[in-house]
Amino acid sequence: MPGYETDTVTRIETNLDDVSPQVLGAVMQQLLAAGALDVWFTPVQMKKSRPGTMLSALCDEAAVEKIADIIFTETTAFGLRVEKIARLKLTRKFETVKTVHGEVTVKLGFKGERLLQIAPEFESCRAIAERAGVPLREVQLAATEVARATFQAR
Amino acid sequence: MPGYETDTVTRIETNLDDVSPQVLGAVMQQLLAAGALDVWFTPVQMKKSRPGTMLSALCDEAAVEKIADIIFTETTAFGLRVEKIARLKLTRKFETVKTVHGEVTVKLGFKGERLLQIAPEFESCRAIAERAGVPLREVQLAATEVARATFQAR
Amino acid sequence: MPGYETDTVTRIETNLDDVSPQVLGAVMQQLLAAGALDVWFTPVQMKKSRPGTMLSALCDEAAVEKIADIIFTETTAFGLRVEKIARLKLTRKFETVKTVHGEVTVKLGFKGERLLQIAPEFESCRAIAERAGVPLREVQLAATEVARATFQAR
Amino acid sequence: MPGYETDTVTRIETNLDDVSPQVLGAVMQQLLAAGALDVWFTPVQMKKSRPGTMLSALCDEAAVEKIADIIFTETTAFGLRVEKIARLKLTRKFETVKTVHGEVTVKLGFKGERLLQIAPEFESCRAIAERAGVPLREVQLAATEVARATFQAR
Amino acid sequence: MPGYETDTVTRIETNLDDVSPQVLGAVMQQLLAAGALDVWFTPVQMKKSRPGTMLSALCDEAAVEKIADIIFTETTAFGLRVEKIARLKLTRKFETVKTVHGEVTVKLGFKGERLLQIAPEFESCRAIAERAGVPLREVQLAATEVARATFQAR
Amino acid sequence: MPGYETDTVTRIETNLDDVSPQVLGAVMQQLLAAGALDVWFTPVQMKKSRPGTMLSALCDEAAVEKIADIIFTETTAFGLRVEKIARLKLTRKFETVKTVHGEVTVKLGFKGERLLQIAPEFESCRAIAERAGVPLREVQLAATEVARATFQAR
Repeated sequence: MPGYETDTVTRIETNLDDVSPQVLGAVMQQLLAAGALDVWFTPVQMKKSRPGTMLSALCDEAAVEKIADIIFTETTAFGLRVEKIARLKLTRKFETVKTVHGEVTVKLGFKGERLLQIAPEFESCRAIAERAGVPLREVQLAATEVARATFQAR
Repeated sequence: MPGYETDTVTRIETNLDDVSPQVLGAVMQQLLAAGALDVWFTPVQMKKSRPGTMLSALCDEAAVEKIADIIFTETTAFGLRVEKIARLKLTRKFETVKTVHGEVTVKLGFKGERLLQIAPEFESCRAIAERAGVPLREVQLAATEVARATFQAR
Repeated sequence: MPGYETDTVTRIETNLDDVSPQVLGAVMQQLLAAGALDVWFTPVQMKKSRPGTMLSALCDEAAVEKIADIIFTETTAFGLRVEKIARLKLTRKFETVKTVHGEVTVKLGFKGERLLQIAPEFESCRAIAERAGVPLREVQLAATEVARATFQAR
Repeated sequence: MPGYETDTVTRIETNLDDVSPQVLGAVMQQLLAAGALDVWFTPVQMKKSRPGTMLSALCDEAAVEKIADIIFTETTAFGLRVEKIARLKLTRKFETVKTVHGEVTVKLGFKGERLLQIAPEFESCRAIAERAGVPLREVQLAATEVARATFQAR
Repeated sequence: MPGYETDTVTRIETNLDDVSPQVLGAVMQQLLAAGALDVWFTPVQMKKSRPGTMLSALCDEAAVEKIADIIFTETTAFGLRVEKIARLKLTRKFETVKTVHGEVTVKLGFKGERLLQIAPEFESCRAIAERAGVPLREVQLAATEVARATFQAR
Repeated sequence: MPGYETDTVTRIETNLDDVSPQVLGAVMQQLLAAGALDVWFTPVQMKKSRPGTMLSALCDEAAVEKIADIIFTETTAFGLRVEKIARLKLTRKFETVKTVHGEVTVKLGFKGERLLQIAPEFESCRAIAERAGVPLREVQLAATEVARATFQAR
């Protein structure tokens, strides 16, 4: 598809009905620290009236064993579903913009030459919001506006 | 409100982030067996990235201690929220109807004289569906149709 | 609490495990059309492995019977929970702002004299986005920025 | 598998943690208008305690770029997961039936010669229910009953 | 991946927006009785404000037709998504352990020689808990402790 | 109810359909830092197909204004529902136990004299698990076992 980048990731999933949510919260951090590209939980209703959780992780092919080892060690999983999935992606570029509240890194997303996304980097917005005593949303908005004015070709 | 019945129930709720869903599935049965009017789970996202569960139970005032005892014994709760809640209800009446698949109990719901609800009793529909080898939905539908023709004043 | 407005609303709730989601989608529209202040669905896990839905509606005291009648007529409810709930509110004010894409109504929210919220009116943003061929988010952002510059005291 | 039809669809998915639900509601309409076969949202719990949403869309191979363009333009996605998925399907047939409330289109689903599904068309039921002042469920039920009596071989 | 077992399962999924949760609860039992390896429900938000349910079932290749037949007969599905998925698994071994409350079967999970999981069999724990009048969690914990002391090489 | 402690808390709730989940994740931290007793998110389906979030916070009466101020400043809320709710509680006591992995603080919960809950303190378990290189679950289990042996009267 012209203009988009493509790659392949592995999605690892397992349904858990006998692990404490406390443990799952900690596992999410461990998986991200181990290089998972993304980790999320979906509430699922399992057999015998169990309010279970589906754990999903995206990772590169090379990280599958490491991710699997953590899930098998820390959770109660006996099996994982492993799927290779194609992705369509915007080309990413990072820039710094100056707002009235301070400097913010923004992630730009392009389809070919066309700028489609402007995403102020969350942690830099949060740090500035705390320091400046303004709402987080306001910093995000300001950074987005400056980035749009600076990078968007009309 | 003319036409509706009213009563008061107690709703008991607690958010759980350190109990296995297996245990919660079993607790639901125990609470219903102990006289809870209804029990349900809501998926909630708790602090520290925990995919928790809110346990809710409705019961009569007289059953509160029994219900509370089960929750404190079987789950990891340290506290329960307890609220009295007014209810608006239809007047209930139970009848038996004959369908092509067999006899089914139906629960009728009236606002004053007016029939608003016809609910075929689930377990009798399921038993008939299994015995007759027809889909459950078809038995429910047939019972509803017969009940409507029989009890609905035009 | 100084600076906030207060009022009281009625919350009507019922758990439904034997109604088609198609019907619930239609009921949401009917309740809003009948004057409900808000209507929402929460996924709940009910007894016997049923993936049920909790229907919640907020309304003024005067609308309770009308709302109850619709729920009892259109859904399979035999009972409703009815609670009066205090609310804390911002003072609302509506203004019109001019953006590069067109005029947008914005809802402003004040705690006393202090402007806390700027919410571009959704339908006017959507109409403009369609007409101008720009993303909805961009219109919302533009309207928020203009409103902030215009109404926010520094 | 004898009796079933088969085809292949593309499922496009992305997890979103920095877009307003207002925008997502509008995107669902746009995607359906652009030819998506189905669109749905799943609540997911993402990193850093974010209550995110997974957006899923099914479409034909030929519509992938159009669907992708809308998602990249209107939401905050930087990447989409794209999977081809085999489907097993009933053979569909549309018929019109006469109920006491009016004419309703029904969609029939066959495995070979065997009728397995009778689905009254939602919008025609809703229109009739409004006009006749009867509950939507009642119209759906009536249409299903007539269709069953008419089309189901015993 | 050294140490893990692998196999392939079929995942069958369909989104349902016009079936009663009562019916879905019964279908879950039927699918498990027919040999599904796992069945679960995910709450999904579908078009036209419908609070739908995604039904997912895992099964062996040989069981696909049987599982599909049940879903098409009992629910309102007109189509199913069918995917083959690779799994990574621990080697399973079943043992019996003696706890102070009674004998419990435990499922052990190994990566090669290394014991990673100890899962007390749910139904035997529940039976013992009921008989002994102790909380289910306590029986599970006791069985896990005994199994760990017995089978875990240090 | 003999044996249980009681108190009253305030629950603050609001449904949000126009705020980014990123912001909500940050708000959860702010509310907990400001003294909220608990904060959680529930996925709700709102009007116009919006996958919204209900934000709930529990706090003491004295903290209501502070909590309300944060929600009104950081999120897009124009109104909050405020309810006083009675709680039933176990008597809490904190103790330290020695496990093979290290010392862990445990929270004990009593109904009168009777020990009903043993909850190993999460952060101390996590710290020990990391240091010792053992799964978090194993530390929690070990602490629970030692506490049971030490504090549970037979």
